[in-house]
Amino acid sequence: MAQKPGIPKGTRDFSPTEIAKRDYIFEIVKKHFRTFGFQPIETPSFENSETLMGKYGDEGDRLIFKILNSGDFMAKVDDVAYDSKDSRALTPKISEKALRYDLTVPFARYVVMHQNEIDFPFKRYQIQPVWRADRPQKGRFREFYQCDADVVGANSLLQEVELIQLYDAVFADLKLEGVTIKLNNRKILAGIAEVIGAHDNLVDFTVALDKLDKIGVEGVKKEMLAKGISEQAIVKAGPLFELSGTNAEQLNTLKRLLFDSGQGSTGVEELGFIINAIDDLGLRSATLEIDVTLARGLNYYTGAILEVAAPKGVDMGSIGGGGRYDDLTGIFGMKDVSGVGISFGLDRIYLVLEELGLFPETLDKTLDVLCINFGEKEAMAALKLVTQLRNKGVKADVYPSNAKMQKQMKYANNRKVPYVILIGEHELANNSFVVKNMQSGVQKNYGLDQCQDFIKTL
Amino acid sequence: MAQKPGIPKGTRDFSPTEIAKRDYIFEIVKKHFRTFGFQPIETPSFENSETLMGKYGDEGDRLIFKILNSGDFMAKVDDVAYDSKDSRALTPKISEKALRYDLTVPFARYVVMHQNEIDFPFKRYQIQPVWRADRPQKGRFREFYQCDADVVGANSLLQEVELIQLYDAVFADLKLEGVTIKLNNRKILAGIAEVIGAHDNLVDFTVALDKLDKIGVEGVKKEMLAKGISEQAIVKAGPLFELSGTNAEQLNTLKRLLFDSGQGSTGVEELGFIINAIDDLGLRSATLEIDVTLARGLNYYTGAILEVAAPKGVDMGSIGGGGRYDDLTGIFGMKDVSGVGISFGLDRIYLVLEELGLFPETLDKTLDVLCINFGEKEAMAALKLVTQLRNKGVKADVYPSNAKMQKQMKYANNRKVPYVILIGEHELANNSFVVKNMQSGVQKNYGLDQCQDFIKTL
Repeated sequence: MAQKPGIPKGTRDFSPTEIAKRDYIFEIVKKHFRTFGFQPIETPSFENSETLMGKYGDEGDRLIFKILNSGDFMAKVDDVAYDSKDSRALTPKISEKALRYDLTVPFARYVVMHQNEIDFPFKRYQIQPVWRADRPQKGRFREFYQCDADVVGANSLLQEVELIQLYDAVFADLKLEGVTIKLNNRKILAGIAEVIGAHDNLVDFTVALDKLDKIGVEGVKKEMLAKGISEQAIVKAGPLFELSGTNAEQLNTLKRLLFDSGQGSTGVEELGFIINAIDDLGLRSATLEIDVTLARGLNYYTGAILEVAAPKGVDMGSIGGGGRYDDLTGIFGMKDVSGVGISFGLDRIYLVLEELGLFPETLDKTLDVLCINFGEKEAMAALKLVTQLRNKGVKADVYPSNAKMQKQMKYANNRKVPYVILIGEHELANNSFVVKNMQSGVQKNYGLDQCQDFIKTL
Repeated sequence: MAQKPGIPKGTRDFSPTEIAKRDYIFEIVKKHFRTFGFQPIETPSFENSETLMGKYGDEGDRLIFKILNSGDFMAKVDDVAYDSKDSRALTPKISEKALRYDLTVPFARYVVMHQNEIDFPFKRYQIQPVWRADRPQKGRFREFYQCDADVVGANSLLQEVELIQLYDAVFADLKLEGVTIKLNNRKILAGIAEVIGAHDNLVDFTVALDKLDKIGVEGVKKEMLAKGISEQAIVKAGPLFELSGTNAEQLNTLKRLLFDSGQGSTGVEELGFIINAIDDLGLRSATLEIDVTLARGLNYYTGAILEVAAPKGVDMGSIGGGGRYDDLTGIFGMKDVSGVGISFGLDRIYLVLEELGLFPETLDKTLDVLCINFGEKEAMAALKLVTQLRNKGVKADVYPSNAKMQKQMKYANNRKVPYVILIGEHELANNSFVVKNMQSGVQKNYGLDQCQDFIKTL
């Protein structure tokens, strides 16, 4: 029976134009991953459920797509369990595999499984889709690509410096000017909590502090009080409200504020090292800014925390983020392996480039030459010519039927073909072909043996 | 708790070396897809179950991976159905989505859904993973890539001609010599069945005929008799047993044999057109051969049937196949859309190239330059140099810690780095760096401002 076809909500078909744009981003990102010494790996789309479950919190567990066991899966469920009709309890009995939820956990699993084949430090990149049973919204999908670069087994802060350079190189090459790379350090956040005596309210504190631009100093203080942060703590945190000026000035303020905290001082030192190194090396187009309100999965990162903001004026959250996590592979029994990495938010970068008109126009040009089809004999001559063109790497085609000229030209226009070749009865008799420049309308004659001359004009 | 990690059976991790080899194949295939005027699309990894179920026969239905609904999925199952504990009956109630099983059905769905945006004839390629709950074996996986090129909305036999050229171009570029492209036509098979009066035994007939090389004429006849094909039919099919010589000679034999069958004669004519066109155009390295035993999913194809055999001496089934199917989109309610396409068997092509040593050696070279790390100051100078190299597209890195020289050099060797750069205390003082050619052992000095001179030698 004929069905009216659709696709599951939160998923997408990609048209040739969309693929060309996505590939444009991927190729630039991959080029820089490689020049920075990263190597690609790929992991299976589904993992054993126990590899993924429990790694992303309760919400993550719910959002992981589970794959139903094959065959008579219910036969393995004992009757007592079955009688409960409890979806949550039954799931592990009828499903043993689950779709990849991010690239980090599979990467940690990969490192542990292949530790004897890997030359550490291991710089890997991975660009693959992930799946989440999230409620679909604008810019949020159930299937989307993640694009990660991580270094494992290297403690040096030079890694953080290089990752900032990597962001800069990619965004400069994408011609996306005005990107801000925000930098913080988990130890600074811990130091602040220590100094102001607000360990338990650190998240509330940073969330409120982040609103400084919008609601002003008094607004922030009010919100902090409302969240139960003490007057005393807020007074102590005073310098943070006035954190401004150059990175060097902010570093000085932080140094004074966190003087009494060992962890905090280490954080300031690390931040200073990275800031100074980048000052020394220079960036091509991005700006590096200290942002002590940056927290991003507070419990995950242990050192540097990074986030990339789209250019001002573009209404789009972060287009990338990352940081250092000291125990990447501990969940799989391999201790003391430090990781540091960044990811690129492909879908958002796509939307930003689209909004700013930064995709090259040539991406649309999927065909260089179309030969009009005037009938069987003429088409055969055209195919011979096209074969020569293709052998030289020219994207060329013969229209597949001798449809009306108008229809064939319309097809050429729709595909934005720059050159149309005509081999009609007359040309066939003369061993010649006519090239029509679709933009200027100018036509030019060539002998069939002058194909090279035409190629040179392309 | 620490777990000993593994991956589901039939799935694979891909290491950087494996990815480099796969990408080598993909890039060559894609290059030719594009020069032949094909455009890429991508479809979601999972489709609504009703899009896939019933499209691949009963076995296909069993082998499709189903995704468990999210949330309290059991709550939607009525008690009567639940009490049956019948896996097959419960599946559609607890699962609404399923993983892609091939690329053809999603493509048909795509064409129907996007028919108003597509400029027909539509030449699309698609390279994406598919999933099958098959029993894993050597060379058979539960997750593997398919790589398809199809044309829809074009009836001309020139398409078949071009697809043969496309196979040839790809295998020639992969330097895989000795590939045979086998060609048949569904109408010839129908014609044979008509002429010998063995409609019902056509599959048995072709399976037996296919063994001619192995078991000889008498063996084949014996098997046909055993399968219930009449003596009379076998006598009539006599010429097929002696089908040999050039394609032209075989065409003549077939023409005589199928003279009384309208369909058969059309098939011979179509076969002849394609053979003559390819004779005229020439192939770069493959050989085109008529093979009337070629059936490949008899019920699916309606015109040309194609299959690619690996070079003789390599024990590997077909490395590609395809054909024409007159009603691609009928299952989704769009009638009379003819499709013709081919696919490349990526995993098998990989194994063949590996066996014959045809992967370029340079694929292993994932890093051009490694700077040895002699400490914080020296490493910073190295990173400055590396930044210049990377800006010029050179794949370069600084070893991330000042580990023992031996350890750093071992890393350079393992990653097959051709050049190692040394900036020690002495070089730092001199504003110079030393380049060591890892193959010849020769060392050369450069000033830090002579980076360009070094790049020129790469």
